[in-house]
Amino acid sequence: MPYHAPIRDFRFLLDHVVGFAEVAATDRFAEATPDMTNAILTEAGKMCEDMLAPLNQIGDKHPAHLENGVVRTPPGFAEGYRAIATGGWIGMSAQAQNGGLGLPMTLTTTVNEMLSGACLALQLNPLMTQGQIEALEHHASDAIKATYLPKLISGEWCGTMNLTEPQAGSDVGALRTKAEPNGDGSYAITGQKIYISWADNDFTANVCHLVLARLPDGKPGTKGISLFMVPKLIPDADGNPGQKNDLRVVSLEHKMGLHGSPTAVMEYSGATGWLVGPEHGGMAAMFTMMNNARLGVGTQGIGTAERALQHALAYAQDRKQGRAQGTGAIIEHADVRRMLTTMRADIYAARAIALMNAVAIDMATATDDPAWQARAAFLTPITKAFGTDIGVEASNTGVQIHGGMGFIEETGAAQFVRDVRVSTIYEGTNGIQAMDLVARKLMDGGDAAFRLLDDVVRGAEAAKATHPDLAHAVWEAAETLREATEWLVSQPDLNDRFAGAVPYLRAFARVLGGHVHLASAVAGDAGHLRLATFYIKRLLPEHISLLAHVREGAADLAAITPADLAAA
Amino acid sequence: MPYHAPIRDFRFLLDHVVGFAEVAATDRFAEATPDMTNAILTEAGKMCEDMLAPLNQIGDKHPAHLENGVVRTPPGFAEGYRAIATGGWIGMSAQAQNGGLGLPMTLTTTVNEMLSGACLALQLNPLMTQGQIEALEHHASDAIKATYLPKLISGEWCGTMNLTEPQAGSDVGALRTKAEPNGDGSYAITGQKIYISWADNDFTANVCHLVLARLPDGKPGTKGISLFMVPKLIPDADGNPGQKNDLRVVSLEHKMGLHGSPTAVMEYSGATGWLVGPEHGGMAAMFTMMNNARLGVGTQGIGTAERALQHALAYAQDRKQGRAQGTGAIIEHADVRRMLTTMRADIYAARAIALMNAVAIDMATATDDPAWQARAAFLTPITKAFGTDIGVEASNTGVQIHGGMGFIEETGAAQFVRDVRVSTIYEGTNGIQAMDLVARKLMDGGDAAFRLLDDVVRGAEAAKATHPDLAHAVWEAAETLREATEWLVSQPDLNDRFAGAVPYLRAFARVLGGHVHLASAVAGDAGHLRLATFYIKRLLPEHISLLAHVREGAADLAAITPADLAAA
Repeated sequence: MPYHAPIRDFRFLLDHVVGFAEVAATDRFAEATPDMTNAILTEAGKMCEDMLAPLNQIGDKHPAHLENGVVRTPPGFAEGYRAIATGGWIGMSAQAQNGGLGLPMTLTTTVNEMLSGACLALQLNPLMTQGQIEALEHHASDAIKATYLPKLISGEWCGTMNLTEPQAGSDVGALRTKAEPNGDGSYAITGQKIYISWADNDFTANVCHLVLARLPDGKPGTKGISLFMVPKLIPDADGNPGQKNDLRVVSLEHKMGLHGSPTAVMEYSGATGWLVGPEHGGMAAMFTMMNNARLGVGTQGIGTAERALQHALAYAQDRKQGRAQGTGAIIEHADVRRMLTTMRADIYAARAIALMNAVAIDMATATDDPAWQARAAFLTPITKAFGTDIGVEASNTGVQIHGGMGFIEETGAAQFVRDVRVSTIYEGTNGIQAMDLVARKLMDGGDAAFRLLDDVVRGAEAAKATHPDLAHAVWEAAETLREATEWLVSQPDLNDRFAGAVPYLRAFARVLGGHVHLASAVAGDAGHLRLATFYIKRLLPEHISLLAHVREGAADLAAITPADLAAA
Repeated sequence: MPYHAPIRDFRFLLDHVVGFAEVAATDRFAEATPDMTNAILTEAGKMCEDMLAPLNQIGDKHPAHLENGVVRTPPGFAEGYRAIATGGWIGMSAQAQNGGLGLPMTLTTTVNEMLSGACLALQLNPLMTQGQIEALEHHASDAIKATYLPKLISGEWCGTMNLTEPQAGSDVGALRTKAEPNGDGSYAITGQKIYISWADNDFTANVCHLVLARLPDGKPGTKGISLFMVPKLIPDADGNPGQKNDLRVVSLEHKMGLHGSPTAVMEYSGATGWLVGPEHGGMAAMFTMMNNARLGVGTQGIGTAERALQHALAYAQDRKQGRAQGTGAIIEHADVRRMLTTMRADIYAARAIALMNAVAIDMATATDDPAWQARAAFLTPITKAFGTDIGVEASNTGVQIHGGMGFIEETGAAQFVRDVRVSTIYEGTNGIQAMDLVARKLMDGGDAAFRLLDDVVRGAEAAKATHPDLAHAVWEAAETLREATEWLVSQPDLNDRFAGAVPYLRAFARVLGGHVHLASAVAGDAGHLRLATFYIKRLLPEHISLLAHVREGAADLAAITPADLAAA
């Protein structure tokens, strides 16, 4: 099961579709020259192909497990992690003053996609650390920055995110974990956290937990929550791992997939922690971390989908069956082609959207322009939900292309389905992403949405002369979406927005997909045009059905009773 | 994880939507009185709820396995199987002269759905036997009938289907298994078969394999294939299991799901078999068996979807989270309601379509009317593909509703996703179902399709006075589908049909779903109307996007190159 890093796509999208030149032209990211970009894609791609891709199936077959309270990771994961760390890939977008490379998030996004495609279970570890680095950069004291950031950026230590408690899943404000001042500037953290990804391992010298907890005077709800750094081993005066902290891995979950990644129940028993950000200001810092992670998780979906496509394509080119034309392989069957091309066209769209998102983040970082900030914020839930939905759909289609072989675990196709399934759930379920989009992200009266649609319309108008049919279809889709957006913005009752939130997010992604495919058709070769034609003619029309759903509001849903849902 | 038999739905659909009264009015099925129907639903439902539902998770956790060449089944499966057999549920539609009850396939379909919802892995065993019974009834000699049918119908013995070989999956004609005459009326069968569901067990006295093989003078391709009965133990002169046959289970597959069901590689080493049907006429007999099984597999998808819905609904009513209104449980959130109601409305549609299909089969059996035969044949691939697609979709939505809990195996939601995944693949992949629909099932110039659409239009016209909006939407959808059907029928190149086959089948199911929901709204209570409104306003519009896809033909797909599909 080899993996081929999708470098051709990255180069083309960066050069011709998502406007990376604008990022590279800023002072902040002046180092992101074409040479540097090429070197990054080539080097990271090579590591993913050679070193990490073989670990994927090993991680599934040899799950991370608990041995006398110590997490043991799958064979080869330690070496794989060291390759990622020593390559500098964890902290490539971290600030230079702490040892990072200060490179654009756009480039980190390309690398994260390749890492995900190569070995998703292992990649989740540095993804968590990247989120922690960003949270510390923005919110931690200088002392904490100095102690933790260099070691997190180098990968010597790794980071986790501790939000969820048994009674507080998506509703973080309901958490009960307590933080009490020790009187020396530190706090005693007590409580249980669940679903902690990579809560421990046997290859980093320390594990740094960012833990949400409530101070004695913290109000109920999210406004009374503070964030704490709680290391597994307390750094000594020289900053080296010292005394063991009062925390432990209680158990690891038995999951549908991602077996290589330990998911833990954590117990904090008066563990020593240090405040990150202001008292009762934990949610802001956690959102920094989560925003980063949401782009990252969307990218996980895309990476997995790409690997599933490559796996299915190889099978479809090899497997002889029936009266297929040409080579006699099943790829010659129209329906198999439909499945493969759907995977490819969807992945291409999702990849471009994730990179558009990352470009907006980089431009916001480089310019502080609120319009870029708003665009980044608007695109983040779309990248997360669409990227992971495509991850699930493409992986399932990959199984389907394999026929009976797809259901047999040895084939490897089923693992992608099992592994990627959690990505539509963690870092905020895709339903919550969609609710964020139609509520918070439309609080500007739809300004960020309309600006994006203006870009889509401009692109369609520019393409009119050379690609009239495709341009017209994209233009019309954008205008239909604009009307639906206007309808949503004008709904005073948020439930009327929430009822159609998921179909709206999907429709927005579909239209953005039309936009990037059209731009590719204009700038690219005959292959780009074929792919764009397939997407715009066959997949883009989905927005029509989705937007019909959006405009129904919530009244009919509110009227549904549990008895209506019961067939018994 | 309890299971509630969906008896309310069955009663309502039989009485008001799918026209079961017409079946019960025939001489052939005069025994299917309302009292008999009620007794069947109640008794089978009770067994499924009390006895079989608890076996589902046990089967997943204690997979069937091979012990010194003998298949060992999960704890409780033997008792569960005996309950199914002694209840008379295996042979309830088998002909009375062999010990069957001669009841309509419509009633078997209700029972099969309940068995599937209760314990899919176990239910697959009697489903295979039912197909074998029907094949023998239609094609076997009187001697074979006398020896095998009573024991298969009673469940003393069970049956399997042996089509697939490593090099011959969907392309059955490529098979290599040989049959050589022994000179005594029997044949020596030699070859390897794969993906044999329930190839062996430790609870029936014999296992009867129906095996496709080629006689020495058999032509290449499907026209040279014959069907053989190859029992595990050769019946002695009294018809009791005697000498061991030369066949063995080589290995069991390690599958994504359905762990309770042993899926075997079988080796036939000159095993003794007897011809079923004429020489070189094996495909016809196998199609009898497969047609039966395709309705059954569609029903498996629906049964699993129903169980996943019940599981998710219970969770959504129990789980408190966030600022939900009313009870404070997550079912009060609009997006959770959208997910649950989508599951419910889709399952209802799929269930009604399966019963329409079974009614057509029963009417064809009772009347020999070619129009009923054509309708049954047209609906079978739709039931199979739509039922199993809904199985996969609803199970995935069930996981999503559980949030992080959905990814943890102990919760049980993930098992439905893993178990049902194979149903879109076996008994002919859903792509092959769709190709069958647009090629073979439109060979009548679309007559069967247009007659169905006429019924949909008649239903819409009848509902116009009381439900004008819903009726208009269904009427319009039927007419759009009629145009697409006319377009398909007029395509001389089958590839132009195949390229849109899957979206066409889905669109047809969507429109039939609108038809049955509208009929329910007319005949039912306020709850039926709420569900119908949701389906027709929010889900039915999917047909628009799907039919746009259908009309694109195959040219753009044929032009796609493997390089277009590669991102590297």
